[in-house]
Amino acid sequence: MKPSIKAFVFDAYGTLFDVHSVTEACNDFFPGKGADISQSWRKKQLEYFFLRQVMGRYAPFDQVTIDALRYAVKEQQEDLSHEQEIALLDAYKKLDSYEEVKEVLSALQGRKLVVFSNGSPTMLEPLVKHSEFFSLLTDTISVDKVKQFKPSPASYSLVLEELNVRREEVLFMSSNGWDISGAKSFGFHTAWINRTGLPEEELGLTPDCVYTNLKGILEWLE
Amino acid sequence: MKPSIKAFVFDAYGTLFDVHSVTEACNDFFPGKGADISQSWRKKQLEYFFLRQVMGRYAPFDQVTIDALRYAVKEQQEDLSHEQEIALLDAYKKLDSYEEVKEVLSALQGRKLVVFSNGSPTMLEPLVKHSEFFSLLTDTISVDKVKQFKPSPASYSLVLEELNVRREEVLFMSSNGWDISGAKSFGFHTAWINRTGLPEEELGLTPDCVYTNLKGILEWLE
Repeated sequence: MKPSIKAFVFDAYGTLFDVHSVTEACNDFFPGKGADISQSWRKKQLEYFFLRQVMGRYAPFDQVTIDALRYAVKEQQEDLSHEQEIALLDAYKKLDSYEEVKEVLSALQGRKLVVFSNGSPTMLEPLVKHSEFFSLLTDTISVDKVKQFKPSPASYSLVLEELNVRREEVLFMSSNGWDISGAKSFGFHTAWINRTGLPEEELGLTPDCVYTNLKGILEWLE
Repeated sequence: MKPSIKAFVFDAYGTLFDVHSVTEACNDFFPGKGADISQSWRKKQLEYFFLRQVMGRYAPFDQVTIDALRYAVKEQQEDLSHEQEIALLDAYKKLDSYEEVKEVLSALQGRKLVVFSNGSPTMLEPLVKHSEFFSLLTDTISVDKVKQFKPSPASYSLVLEELNVRREEVLFMSSNGWDISGAKSFGFHTAWINRTGLPEEELGLTPDCVYTNLKGILEWLE
């Protein structure tokens, strides 16, 4: 039997929204290199979250995202103009959402339905507000409020303060294995949305369940 | 003019020793996949250091290294036997050193010449002791003593305690851009040994100098 869940908390990037929907915009500027730049951009963005958290040098999501883009473009021996930088950062505010999100959030109505992300408000709010499921959400929480990136315990702790729930009352969904590991370590129930068939992380923290998309979490409804 | 340096401190993996000298051993077990597994193994090992540091779940280097190997092998849809695991971990204690290391350490004799690594003593000590330059070193320091991985400030701080020097008296060498960023953020002088022509990290922390191999640091001699 599934435990009683008071808050369904969703990671944003990769979980509700497809970060690689910037591939086409990258390809317009750097023909033939769009997919490589998009992959490297995301990889470096994550690495910089982790490194900045370890070094104690928090910077907001938009800065980290620009830094990561600059690295990804340099890596391809290309030059990035200021206009291209602004256009690609803007594309990051208009990512496509995954097709099942609206249906799943509709089926969960009446519960706390929350987005919780490393995104800072300037990037996260336009993205969420322009989505087709904005009206179905009850809260959007950014780690920027405490300036501690996921997967630090201090970041997940913000969810408890903001929602006034206990950790065992939270079901946390993410497509990012590292985010599921961090949430599990903190004490949330966890559902790993393994969209691309990745191996499970080897961090000694098994997710409570694994689904190929968000529809799987409907079995947590009482 | 270069500042006065009391301690020349070297990262181990990637800087003195070639982590990809395990490629052949990987290829013996997984024909045609040795290079991919070796690359992924190292990448995942670093990611697990950073994630464990962020989550507050330190584990010694040998465990993290085995975990990363298991992930890398799973990613290639291969099975790893216990014997293969032991053999590959053993190969990690016998990595090749880079060809210029002995010559550079010889030229620096009379100074504190120190290895400082995320490696735990069970992995790091056999590696260093079996190298051709062991007798030229004055100290080997493992983060395991404080159980804080680089690039955390707490890890670099251990160097000051162990060597009884001030941070501005240290020249720190690493081939790992993230390690140079962390050391620079902490306050060491830094020389990035950029062996493979990588772009500079976009973390707002420029290394004091960049060389293609360790010979470049000889210009810091007074």
